[in-house]
Amino acid sequence: MATGEFEFINWVRSRTQTDPRVLVGPGDDCAVLAPPARPLLVTTDVLTDGVDFVLAEAGGRAVGRKAMAVNLSDIAAMAGVPTAAVVGVVLPTGGDGRRLAEELFYGLREVADAFGVALVGGDTNAWAGDLVVSVTLLGEATARGPVLRSGARPGDWVFVTGPCGGSLLGRHLSPVPRVEEALALHAAAELHAMIDVSDGLAADLNHVLEESRCGAVLAADAVPVHPDAVELAKRTGRRPLEHALGDGEDFELVLAVSPADGEKLLRERPVPGLAKIGECVGSGLWLEENGTRRPLAPAGWVHPV
Amino acid sequence: MATGEFEFINWVRSRTQTDPRVLVGPGDDCAVLAPPARPLLVTTDVLTDGVDFVLAEAGGRAVGRKAMAVNLSDIAAMAGVPTAAVVGVVLPTGGDGRRLAEELFYGLREVADAFGVALVGGDTNAWAGDLVVSVTLLGEATARGPVLRSGARPGDWVFVTGPCGGSLLGRHLSPVPRVEEALALHAAAELHAMIDVSDGLAADLNHVLEESRCGAVLAADAVPVHPDAVELAKRTGRRPLEHALGDGEDFELVLAVSPADGEKLLRERPVPGLAKIGECVGSGLWLEENGTRRPLAPAGWVHPV
Repeated sequence: MATGEFEFINWVRSRTQTDPRVLVGPGDDCAVLAPPARPLLVTTDVLTDGVDFVLAEAGGRAVGRKAMAVNLSDIAAMAGVPTAAVVGVVLPTGGDGRRLAEELFYGLREVADAFGVALVGGDTNAWAGDLVVSVTLLGEATARGPVLRSGARPGDWVFVTGPCGGSLLGRHLSPVPRVEEALALHAAAELHAMIDVSDGLAADLNHVLEESRCGAVLAADAVPVHPDAVELAKRTGRRPLEHALGDGEDFELVLAVSPADGEKLLRERPVPGLAKIGECVGSGLWLEENGTRRPLAPAGWVHPV
Repeated sequence: MATGEFEFINWVRSRTQTDPRVLVGPGDDCAVLAPPARPLLVTTDVLTDGVDFVLAEAGGRAVGRKAMAVNLSDIAAMAGVPTAAVVGVVLPTGGDGRRLAEELFYGLREVADAFGVALVGGDTNAWAGDLVVSVTLLGEATARGPVLRSGARPGDWVFVTGPCGGSLLGRHLSPVPRVEEALALHAAAELHAMIDVSDGLAADLNHVLEESRCGAVLAADAVPVHPDAVELAKRTGRRPLEHALGDGEDFELVLAVSPADGEKLLRERPVPGLAKIGECVGSGLWLEENGTRRPLAPAGWVHPV
């Protein structure tokens, strides 16, 4: 690991020197962190120009924010507390590498600061190719333990933390990871299973169902549709509901709880946008609309009757 | 984090299910690890085609081996015990992505297995660009604590664990991280400072000197020169010694200890290739040859008299 580049190392040093979690910050071969008291969460996501962002349109700062946020969303999905991150960057040699690195760093720092994450090191490289940003984020489980994908069971109620669909109109670049929301839900109820919506509401719920070996029925009129999904539907000719079920990168959380805990969540509303969208069943993924239950493809496409 | 690709997830699951360090392996949003008893080490390195390897020449398996090995070398430099890794891969869309991913995975696995590292998850992507492999490796300090770059002091003896130079002839692709050697040295002596040779013997020693705020004098005839450095020198017209001091990616360790511990190491030889190459002084980086002390550039270039 090497982190001598640009102002990164000095800034990170100044911060990490007063952070009790960080025993050794950047400037050495490894960062050294105080051993966590609870199980350690580890997640990594790699973002590339042209796939996860278009650098020329978004700018380095937005890319940095997104790279940190999508990893935070994975920690949120386990109802964990994010703690420390390392960042790998591959800069294109053509442009102003120093400026791009700084913009990236400002974006990464902005989101890291907002969520109490210590940036403890990284590796900066350059090449003739396009920009690549890789973030590995560490976190800690709470005393209640991490929430897995595998604990949903038939009869559970399925919730989502907010409206979905149409994030490609721009929202995907500035996701708000539901870290606080996950902790509030975890404190209020026994979460059987949870995941963040990165592939799409139906696709990610399907990941939960596969790991939990059960099915689910969603109620079409209960799925919160984001205004962006309505806007995007005007252009694509598809239904807003299909965008809400099929589009990715909403970074809301989908979760399953017992009916008793479900009622408690609806009563107490620890997360304002929380909506009950369906219930778990024995098998399959289904959409119920106007009294008819039809198969729902994980891609969000609704089978015709 | 997503790790559903190819055979990776199933293999990793089968291994991590019986690994007491891994509470939740891939197939969830984060890996969950048992909390380490000792300080946690974190390091990351990103390798790119055309810079750290030439995929068309090396093949995916060698790239996978190198990506894991260079991170292990950073853990070795802190005298840590490697424990778990996550891997981010960006595959070129042009070729046989599945086959390349499998080759990479075999290489990563081979080295991870050899060093007791649990591969606990990752993120696989594809794009129109060239191959990128990012590894983040976790480890634990021993009871003696991590060895930093900052503890060398004037009077210390400087050692290297083996011969250096000419790794570009091929050795750089299959580095043997000095994990065991570091632990043996750490058990035998109080290591004041240590680093692995990735940038070059002189450059990496200089990193130690900067962090330790002291200098060093190397004895030209004591620096172990690798046969590859001799071979490469025939082609470049430079001295083999300059290749030994200036070439990167040897992945030997350079360390500083007290004279008393230095004598102990020479007596007990816990690492066969260990060689005393110099001593720390107040400031500067110097090379002593034929009774003359000249400035040594961190790039390995020897100043003319």
